[in-house]
Amino acid sequence: MINSDAICQIGVVVHDIEKTGQLFADFLGVERPEVASSGPVEIAKATYKGEPSNATCKMMFFELQNLQLELIQPDEQPSIWRDVLDEKGEGIHHIAFQVKGAKAHMQTLAEKGYPTTMSGNYGDGSGMYAYLDTVGDLKMIIELLESF
Amino acid sequence: MINSDAICQIGVVVHDIEKTGQLFADFLGVERPEVASSGPVEIAKATYKGEPSNATCKMMFFELQNLQLELIQPDEQPSIWRDVLDEKGEGIHHIAFQVKGAKAHMQTLAEKGYPTTMSGNYGDGSGMYAYLDTVGDLKMIIELLESF
Repeated sequence: MINSDAICQIGVVVHDIEKTGQLFADFLGVERPEVASSGPVEIAKATYKGEPSNATCKMMFFELQNLQLELIQPDEQPSIWRDVLDEKGEGIHHIAFQVKGAKAHMQTLAEKGYPTTMSGNYGDGSGMYAYLDTVGDLKMIIELLESF
Repeated sequence: MINSDAICQIGVVVHDIEKTGQLFADFLGVERPEVASSGPVEIAKATYKGEPSNATCKMMFFELQNLQLELIQPDEQPSIWRDVLDEKGEGIHHIAFQVKGAKAHMQTLAEKGYPTTMSGNYGDGSGMYAYLDTVGDLKMIIELLESF
C-alpha cells in the first residue's frame, strides 16, 4: 500500500532537546548536532486535524548509518507532537517512510482507513511531511516524507 | 559509547501478533511473515531484573530494506515485553543496535549508568540480546544484539 520498504527516520518527542540530545550524542559517541527549527509558519503551512496550525518545534537530527534519528521539542500549541508528549510523555513518536507522490499516497491511504492527521512543508520548502492516523491498526504513528 | 551507528531493528509489542502482523503486511504490501517463537527456555537462558526468567514470546520479523521491524507478543510471565505492554500498552518497545562483544558493552554501559534489564540467547543459540535501562536518559529502551 505504501510502496516503500525503507524506514528513513525514527522520531522522538522530548521536553528538553539540548539535554536529551547531549545524552544521545554521548551514548552514540558522536558530536551533538545543531538544534534546527521547523521554520517560518508561512512556509510550513501546517494543518492539524483539518485546521491551519502555527505550531512549531525544535528538531535535532542524528544521521546514523542507515536512517535518521530525530528529536523533537514542540512548542505549547496543539500539534501531533505536543499532544503525544502531553498524553504519553517522552518517547518514540513516529517512524517515517520516504515516498514519491506523498499527496497521492495520502488520498489512497485515507480511503484505506488511514487519514492524515497533520501535514506541512519543511521549513525551507524543500519537501513535505504527513502523519497518518495509523495507531489503532499499526500501534504507531507512521509519517510519509517527500523531498521535492 | 556504543560503537555502532546502525539501528538494525525496531521492536513493537502487541496483543495479537497475527492480526497486527496482517495489517502491517497489508500496509507494506508484502506477505505476512511466519510467527516465530522465542524458543526453548533452556537455550534462551533469559534473565530479567537479575533473576532467571522463563518468559517467552511470539515474534514476527518484517525484513525491510534497511532494518528489521519486529512484532512481539509476550506470554503472561514477567518480562520486559509484558511489563511494557501492561504499563504503556501496544506500541514501539525498543530500537536495537547490532554490536560485537555484547557482554563487554553491557559491563561498560552499566558503569556509565545503563545497566542491563533483561538478556538472553536467541532461541536457536545463534546470538544474544540485552535490553538496557536507557529510558530515563534516552526516552526509549535500547537493545544490543550480537550474532555469534
